[in-house]
Amino acid sequence: MIIILRADVSDQNVQVVEQKIASMGMKSHVSRGIQRTVVGIIGDESKVDKEAFEVFPFVESVIRVMKPYKIVSRDSHHEDTVIDVAGIPIGGKTIQIIGGPCSVETPDQMAKAAAGVAAAGCRLMRGGAFKPRTSPYAFQGVGVEGLEMFQVAARKHNLPVVTELMDVRMLDTFLEHKVDVIQIGTRNMQNFDLLKEVGKVQTPVILKRGMSATISEWLMSAEYIAANGNHNIIFCERGVRSFETAYRNMLDVTAIPVIKRETHLPVIIDPSHAGGKAWMVPALSRAAIAAGADGLLIEMHPCPSEAWCDADQALNPEQLSELMVELRGIAHVIGRDF
Amino acid sequence: MIIILRADVSDQNVQVVEQKIASMGMKSHVSRGIQRTVVGIIGDESKVDKEAFEVFPFVESVIRVMKPYKIVSRDSHHEDTVIDVAGIPIGGKTIQIIGGPCSVETPDQMAKAAAGVAAAGCRLMRGGAFKPRTSPYAFQGVGVEGLEMFQVAARKHNLPVVTELMDVRMLDTFLEHKVDVIQIGTRNMQNFDLLKEVGKVQTPVILKRGMSATISEWLMSAEYIAANGNHNIIFCERGVRSFETAYRNMLDVTAIPVIKRETHLPVIIDPSHAGGKAWMVPALSRAAIAAGADGLLIEMHPCPSEAWCDADQALNPEQLSELMVELRGIAHVIGRDF
Amino acid sequence: MIIILRADVSDQNVQVVEQKIASMGMKSHVSRGIQRTVVGIIGDESKVDKEAFEVFPFVESVIRVMKPYKIVSRDSHHEDTVIDVAGIPIGGKTIQIIGGPCSVETPDQMAKAAAGVAAAGCRLMRGGAFKPRTSPYAFQGVGVEGLEMFQVAARKHNLPVVTELMDVRMLDTFLEHKVDVIQIGTRNMQNFDLLKEVGKVQTPVILKRGMSATISEWLMSAEYIAANGNHNIIFCERGVRSFETAYRNMLDVTAIPVIKRETHLPVIIDPSHAGGKAWMVPALSRAAIAAGADGLLIEMHPCPSEAWCDADQALNPEQLSELMVELRGIAHVIGRDF
Amino acid sequence: MIIILRADVSDQNVQVVEQKIASMGMKSHVSRGIQRTVVGIIGDESKVDKEAFEVFPFVESVIRVMKPYKIVSRDSHHEDTVIDVAGIPIGGKTIQIIGGPCSVETPDQMAKAAAGVAAAGCRLMRGGAFKPRTSPYAFQGVGVEGLEMFQVAARKHNLPVVTELMDVRMLDTFLEHKVDVIQIGTRNMQNFDLLKEVGKVQTPVILKRGMSATISEWLMSAEYIAANGNHNIIFCERGVRSFETAYRNMLDVTAIPVIKRETHLPVIIDPSHAGGKAWMVPALSRAAIAAGADGLLIEMHPCPSEAWCDADQALNPEQLSELMVELRGIAHVIGRDF
Repeated sequence: MIIILRADVSDQNVQVVEQKIASMGMKSHVSRGIQRTVVGIIGDESKVDKEAFEVFPFVESVIRVMKPYKIVSRDSHHEDTVIDVAGIPIGGKTIQIIGGPCSVETPDQMAKAAAGVAAAGCRLMRGGAFKPRTSPYAFQGVGVEGLEMFQVAARKHNLPVVTELMDVRMLDTFLEHKVDVIQIGTRNMQNFDLLKEVGKVQTPVILKRGMSATISEWLMSAEYIAANGNHNIIFCERGVRSFETAYRNMLDVTAIPVIKRETHLPVIIDPSHAGGKAWMVPALSRAAIAAGADGLLIEMHPCPSEAWCDADQALNPEQLSELMVELRGIAHVIGRDF
Repeated sequence: MIIILRADVSDQNVQVVEQKIASMGMKSHVSRGIQRTVVGIIGDESKVDKEAFEVFPFVESVIRVMKPYKIVSRDSHHEDTVIDVAGIPIGGKTIQIIGGPCSVETPDQMAKAAAGVAAAGCRLMRGGAFKPRTSPYAFQGVGVEGLEMFQVAARKHNLPVVTELMDVRMLDTFLEHKVDVIQIGTRNMQNFDLLKEVGKVQTPVILKRGMSATISEWLMSAEYIAANGNHNIIFCERGVRSFETAYRNMLDVTAIPVIKRETHLPVIIDPSHAGGKAWMVPALSRAAIAAGADGLLIEMHPCPSEAWCDADQALNPEQLSELMVELRGIAHVIGRDF
Repeated sequence: MIIILRADVSDQNVQVVEQKIASMGMKSHVSRGIQRTVVGIIGDESKVDKEAFEVFPFVESVIRVMKPYKIVSRDSHHEDTVIDVAGIPIGGKTIQIIGGPCSVETPDQMAKAAAGVAAAGCRLMRGGAFKPRTSPYAFQGVGVEGLEMFQVAARKHNLPVVTELMDVRMLDTFLEHKVDVIQIGTRNMQNFDLLKEVGKVQTPVILKRGMSATISEWLMSAEYIAANGNHNIIFCERGVRSFETAYRNMLDVTAIPVIKRETHLPVIIDPSHAGGKAWMVPALSRAAIAAGADGLLIEMHPCPSEAWCDADQALNPEQLSELMVELRGIAHVIGRDF
Repeated sequence: MIIILRADVSDQNVQVVEQKIASMGMKSHVSRGIQRTVVGIIGDESKVDKEAFEVFPFVESVIRVMKPYKIVSRDSHHEDTVIDVAGIPIGGKTIQIIGGPCSVETPDQMAKAAAGVAAAGCRLMRGGAFKPRTSPYAFQGVGVEGLEMFQVAARKHNLPVVTELMDVRMLDTFLEHKVDVIQIGTRNMQNFDLLKEVGKVQTPVILKRGMSATISEWLMSAEYIAANGNHNIIFCERGVRSFETAYRNMLDVTAIPVIKRETHLPVIIDPSHAGGKAWMVPALSRAAIAAGADGLLIEMHPCPSEAWCDADQALNPEQLSELMVELRGIAHVIGRDF
């Protein structure tokens, strides 16, 4: 950790900083430049709060030298981690496309959706039984019975299921229903009690990025899960909040190379929630794979115009199949398996 | 609801829209302009999803005419709502300053903090027993025993207590410990299960704005609480995420007049978490009161440099007392009680 | 244009709106719903300011039905426009990569740069003689003589030159030096006097998006150029400002499909200024082409570590050549010429 | 300047950094910690580009120790600078309110506006003869004759005039018409050629903050003016771009205490362009003065509903007069002259 002192700092104040560092059991190194005095802390900075020094009026800024994340950091594990979901690998050389409807509606809709997902060549299926909705008056998901409908439909095609957990009290029910991948939604990325609980099980977790979370905060949320014992974490970028109003969220495609550099864990993209319109999904999907994403989470509905939720962002089965052809081509160009 | 069709829409497609509206039990009105065809829906638009029409490729955009919030809307209740917290009014003509430390630490720290809060003239006290922290390795709050320490210290000065609820499973414990005001933090503004549960009790709730929540989303989160039965809601703006790095969050002072216009409920400001530095707090506090806020939530610690959390943003007791004099002066200039 | 009136509007106020519309020579249509009264204006809304109605306290909002851009709109010209730059097409089916250094430095550096650009297979070259720099103390470009150095080097390889115009007083000099494509930088996207002047010549213009410009504002800036007579406009997205600090700007990849839908003009991407680091450039470049961009503007320096400006974002000639292979592969997958 | 190297850096690479520093004529100090190696540069860092080191793949980050601004920095001039505008002080203890219409329209409108401004107690007047408009089809200002109309009206009440310069070729005309304060608009904050030219005259300059400029970039734009010789600079915050759509721009009230700490120059606020609606102006104006602003730039029109531009954001003369009473009260509470 490096402490930059204000231009007019007195010798006495420099000593205050040195003493505080010593009281924490660490050593300091003072460098008096012409224009600024800089103090370096020698020791494990993860045990030190920046605020403990920023509180002094003669301190201009405090800079961490270390990354705050550990288990999820590529510094701690150089090779790509491949996560096993019922025998299907996520991460590494392979690209996986997870398809399915926004929400579980009826057994018939789910049967058709599963058939479409499998026919398109996807190997995992998504669908929400519990839906986070901005309005309390909007459809909130069909609930627990949706988990059953989902499993019945998906098992027929050997598709592991991916579904969102919103309420920490529902975790046991998810485990009982053998959910294969637990999705933590954008609004819960910093619901720390929920993160701690999914950290105590071994079910793989898709951790969506918060709507305005920095990449560093996102990695720290994954660290919450990892520090509690569950290292099966898949990052999912789904668009962030911006000033632009021509679409719903701004897909942060740059996050893909950055996250691949910072962590050994896989990262996938949700192009459907990012743009918010079905016609944008092919372009965003191709961009994500080309940029190096390990997979996609795409909304597909057997009949989008009848969907109970987010009707305007789902592809139909034919559109998904056509897109898969392009994605496979791009994957091969950059040396990935598909 | 108004549906704007694309320039080249066919008559047949206009009929598709009209039929869909009719199937929902509502009437439509088609207006063919020179450059665009516009369809108005006549009926209760709260029952209609925009997406149900946006799914059609010949629809350019769909515009709501009504505000999506109801109970919390000023349209439904014209006068300012005054919320009673153990006999102390929040909202209306009066301004309330809620002071206290970021986190509950020790009985001694809380005793000194409560004395300082009372001496400065504040009538409510804040303090966190459970702390949402970006890092799993940072201090997470003293937990349940902190609720007790807090009550012992605050009761001595007749200060109702304000403290943050993060985990829905802790609500009963909060009720047992007679927490006077439940704070919902910025990271939980769209933790809908938590909102539903605090909606089922009558304890007043301070609902902090999400870090990048629009004012409309914030009102909808309050609507979740209200729709479940609890109308004792206080909005709290605490700074939003922006591109600026010179301070922590950007205090959205404009939200004050907007929220006062849109809702009948009180709105307070947290200047400490907004700027993130103690030296910014007086300027932001004065601005908030001058702009029409109904109160403030200010961090004060008996000895900031020894605080276990956010040391750099707390005022000391003398600074709080001095600030109260300025705030009282401004309140009187704009005709408020203090 | 649609005017939504507040819930409690009086009949008299509705008449005020109707009279104002009539005074503008247009017709109105009033629709009284249960919860809101809506007034539609029938006529050419491009002649009406929204503010003229928003000024009334009983007006809740005013919504445009038409897009504000005309010449650049795809409504006015359905096919893709292909812009001819000295015989090289930009737009349509072909993809063009424009390579070159951030700034013109010396004849030798430019000779090597041009050779590298040509060897990699690029057909146009970029380079700045005038540099917009945040600091007045930073290198500001070599100036007019840089235009000469640039031409000497580029002509040897038959590469048309792309260079930035910052000062309206320099336009004649640019024409004298036969600059093939004038670049308008992000900081000048709304320098309206500069836009008007480049609108009066026929030299193709690359119009970079403002750092926080909406797509609509960007299209309107192009409209300034087009309305003055120059229709040879190429849009260039170069990353926008966001809350993220892990890289310089957030590349808005979603802007590609949106701009292709809204306008008939080509759009290219600058991956170098977006991410700000050379190691991010390949991922962003592939993403841009996969998303449908018509080309790229990439920084390449014969020896990046010796560059006078933005050293950390330039590729070296080998890296550019390798990237071209991947880009060609992706272009072919999506049916583009390269 | 401090250079943080990646965890796995070799001794050879550390030497590369040291040699580069030596080649710049400066000294280095290497500190090998357990987890990171850090190199400090001893010497004048203003002469060093960060990118020169960031280009190396083994460099993790480079941190400046010094502020990049000099002349405008409070480090270089501790006392508040008071700028003299025709005998009227801006900055220091006094607060100045600059009132007037968005645009100059007619002699009659300007006469009434000037009378209203003077009657309300304002000592300077604003008004635009040249208007930056998003659309090329919107009213662009009355032009040069507007400068004359403005002077005739303002002189009658001894009001110095403040008006916007957009085109560098118009500077001489502004000087001939004895404009008292040149306003540089938000879209031109980084029009560096314009900044250099207004830096060569002595007319006071109001430098509006760019729509998404950081405070540091804003200070650097002022440094451009100052470095060319003109130190009569007044900062003006006018709202920044954000994700919120309930109003036009987000007024950054926190910028006030930050800018007062970083620079000795005055800072004023434009509440009219920030919120974009007249009904928000009083709240924002009071907040700005309470936060420590040195003045305001407020739009007032003799008859807002007939204004040619931004009709919905102007106060009428009575509203301005009423607001002045409140502002005076707040100014006195915080010890300012008004």
